[in-house]
Amino acid sequence: MWDEEYDIVIIGSGFAGLAAALEARKTCSSVVVLEKMQVPGGNSAISGGLVAAAGSPLQAEEGILDSPELMLDDMLRAGLDYNDPELARIVAEKSTETLLWTIEELGVQFKQTLSHLGGHSVPRTYNTTNTSGSGITRPMLVKCREKGIPIDLKTLLQRFITDEQGAVLGVEVRRGYVFPHAGSGESRRIRARKAVILATGGFSQDKAFRRIQNPILSENIESTNHPGATAESLVAAIRAGATPVQLSLIQLGPWASRDEEGFGVGSMFSMLAGFPYGVLIDVKTGRRFVNELSDRKLLVDAMLNTGRESLAIVDQKGVRYASTLGKCLKRGVVKQFGSIEELSQVNQVPLAPLLETIRVYNSSVKRGVDEEFGKPIPEDLLPIEEPPFYSIRLISKVHHCMGGIQINARAQVLDIETHRLIQGFYAAGEITGGIHGASRLGSNAITDCLVFGRIAGRNAAQDPSR
Amino acid sequence: MWDEEYDIVIIGSGFAGLAAALEARKTCSSVVVLEKMQVPGGNSAISGGLVAAAGSPLQAEEGILDSPELMLDDMLRAGLDYNDPELARIVAEKSTETLLWTIEELGVQFKQTLSHLGGHSVPRTYNTTNTSGSGITRPMLVKCREKGIPIDLKTLLQRFITDEQGAVLGVEVRRGYVFPHAGSGESRRIRARKAVILATGGFSQDKAFRRIQNPILSENIESTNHPGATAESLVAAIRAGATPVQLSLIQLGPWASRDEEGFGVGSMFSMLAGFPYGVLIDVKTGRRFVNELSDRKLLVDAMLNTGRESLAIVDQKGVRYASTLGKCLKRGVVKQFGSIEELSQVNQVPLAPLLETIRVYNSSVKRGVDEEFGKPIPEDLLPIEEPPFYSIRLISKVHHCMGGIQINARAQVLDIETHRLIQGFYAAGEITGGIHGASRLGSNAITDCLVFGRIAGRNAAQDPSR
Repeated sequence: MWDEEYDIVIIGSGFAGLAAALEARKTCSSVVVLEKMQVPGGNSAISGGLVAAAGSPLQAEEGILDSPELMLDDMLRAGLDYNDPELARIVAEKSTETLLWTIEELGVQFKQTLSHLGGHSVPRTYNTTNTSGSGITRPMLVKCREKGIPIDLKTLLQRFITDEQGAVLGVEVRRGYVFPHAGSGESRRIRARKAVILATGGFSQDKAFRRIQNPILSENIESTNHPGATAESLVAAIRAGATPVQLSLIQLGPWASRDEEGFGVGSMFSMLAGFPYGVLIDVKTGRRFVNELSDRKLLVDAMLNTGRESLAIVDQKGVRYASTLGKCLKRGVVKQFGSIEELSQVNQVPLAPLLETIRVYNSSVKRGVDEEFGKPIPEDLLPIEEPPFYSIRLISKVHHCMGGIQINARAQVLDIETHRLIQGFYAAGEITGGIHGASRLGSNAITDCLVFGRIAGRNAAQDPSR
Repeated sequence: MWDEEYDIVIIGSGFAGLAAALEARKTCSSVVVLEKMQVPGGNSAISGGLVAAAGSPLQAEEGILDSPELMLDDMLRAGLDYNDPELARIVAEKSTETLLWTIEELGVQFKQTLSHLGGHSVPRTYNTTNTSGSGITRPMLVKCREKGIPIDLKTLLQRFITDEQGAVLGVEVRRGYVFPHAGSGESRRIRARKAVILATGGFSQDKAFRRIQNPILSENIESTNHPGATAESLVAAIRAGATPVQLSLIQLGPWASRDEEGFGVGSMFSMLAGFPYGVLIDVKTGRRFVNELSDRKLLVDAMLNTGRESLAIVDQKGVRYASTLGKCLKRGVVKQFGSIEELSQVNQVPLAPLLETIRVYNSSVKRGVDEEFGKPIPEDLLPIEEPPFYSIRLISKVHHCMGGIQINARAQVLDIETHRLIQGFYAAGEITGGIHGASRLGSNAITDCLVFGRIAGRNAAQDPSR
């Protein structure tokens, strides 16, 4: 009947899967992580490495007042209250302890400055020193090796194996699978003596599936995700009785570069420099049209509404935290100019309105109030006036699936018919739905993945049901 | 193996199910309709009986220029482009031929005036003479009897029976089921030699299921639907491999009365009088806050944003098409007043701002332009000035599920994994998802149900697969 057996079988080797593995391993010797790609880390490894935490040590140092309540409020406001408030609260409440866990137990290195991302009331975002999620997945993989947790690559989930009551007993996989070749590899049946934890991420690269959920997201809209971000494990979970939640709520990132593929290096430039310290303008008119620190949904809606190209502009002082600047310049994703005149000419922005836009914006910054669009003006926000100036051409790309399968506060997957837990079945991370509602805030994904990955690992290892 | 056999097994006896039955019966002698409730007609029978049709005879008589293209544009605009454009186009294109079919083949009787409902560019809505969907379901049931199509009541769908390739072979039901008692009745296996057509409607009354999809829709938010509008057949379809689409897009109706349960008689009063010929005001301020002819989503969003009670006010001339007025007055759902002063006192609306609101509105009506909120001002829209005046207290109620299972243009249910049709499986009406996107326009549901019910019935009867 079974080809292999483990106590805990985890599918997916990103933040959620690895966090689940490390936590489960504390009380359970037999844990395996299965990964369909040829490299571990999934989309987590190519993310920007931003972690939101409310009430963190850096906030204390900088005198920033924050709380889980305020973070939850921000999540619900951006999420248009589509969020499951109980699950969202858990992310906010456990954010700082989880951040500290990455530092103390994993040795993750963070920069000593916080970022203020759109939709957050205050700066609460930590940045890995290498400006990448790999700054977290690599130490996690090292720790897994130390603890003797195998990460089995090229292993594709095919389906969940359930008993007559619907309990998940194990999985059927293909070992030796070569993405994306269906049918490659050999079929194996793997028993999970305690539980299966699904942590396979979102489906932003599954153009057929995402278009069914939101027809606006046509083939020619790019994604920031790695090519493996497809829907087959979500489908397998639904076939096993999981409840699909809010699958049509799919986030576009407003900050990606028009001049490179995928997430690239430009996205982090926009997030760390262009949006917080610069202006976002319509290329055709030279005018601002939105608070640059709005949440992603508001920004994308505003950008799509202009129906035109958008450009972020920032000066010498504004790029001081833009750690990807060197790479951006090298790849031509960000361009550098000695004057606004030159910038306007190369980007074909009408000069007079652009100068007026910057003049009005600078005067708002000096006064400390953006009356036009309500952008928060903290003390470290300075006028755009010191050359060189920098610009990045933006285009919206599919970035995150807010929808997925429903879990409860213990990360147990809930049955679509009974609304009760499915025995032996846990999930965490982007594969789950309902935590972020209509719009996930930047830097909340890693927090969510780590928080619920750990919850899933801990509870699965101690699952009393078997 | 099987207890009973038919060529075509239809689940649900509302507009879509009955239309499918009548159409299938034209080429196929063995058709059955299964209905879980003790009466036929489902939610269709208690709806308002409004049918949208583009390019209709009444539009021609009244000189109203309309086209399927314009109707499609209206659907996509209200739907925020979440609509499947191919399916939405079919509804618009077949709207008039389907309306004529109800008149010519079924003998449905309509009033000789059109209504202009919110979100529609022009008046294009027919009204049944009895201001109820039963004006359509009753003639359909009569026709079914004539044609020898059995409508088997108290028969609950339990699950689809599929073969190893996933094709639908039949259904397991409970005969003698007494809603809502799970386990009542006897289990029977019914074979569908050609196909099963699912036409079971939405899940607006399934408080647990709808709240999972949209947590805002808590237990204490009422629904306009009949109690049988629950999710079990949707769940059964998903278990059989159907693709869930946009389940979180659930519509609240902005026009229901606070002073009665369900859809009641007040909803039609608001739709036929209060919104087109009156003003919608915030009770606390006495002010308008929205174009009364916006689509339902815009209206509900605006009403929830005020966070206060809303009231629609209309005068003697404005109620000339309000065919439920008598019942409304009798039940206390609509109140009648000799003066605005009296109306303001009873409803506790501040008088001075209310008088000013009506003065400004009347002057907009006279000028033919509503500069404040952009309400369309047709020729037959008159100032609010002639007593008696009428008011209705409004509250938002869950009304329609835009989401459901995915179908193609032939009404075939599509598999969640392969995106190809599931053999022997058709669906139509509110159980399907993706046609109306983020907001279904008033009077488009009946058109959709009849159009796709007929498509499903015709194609299922001629299904070449078996």
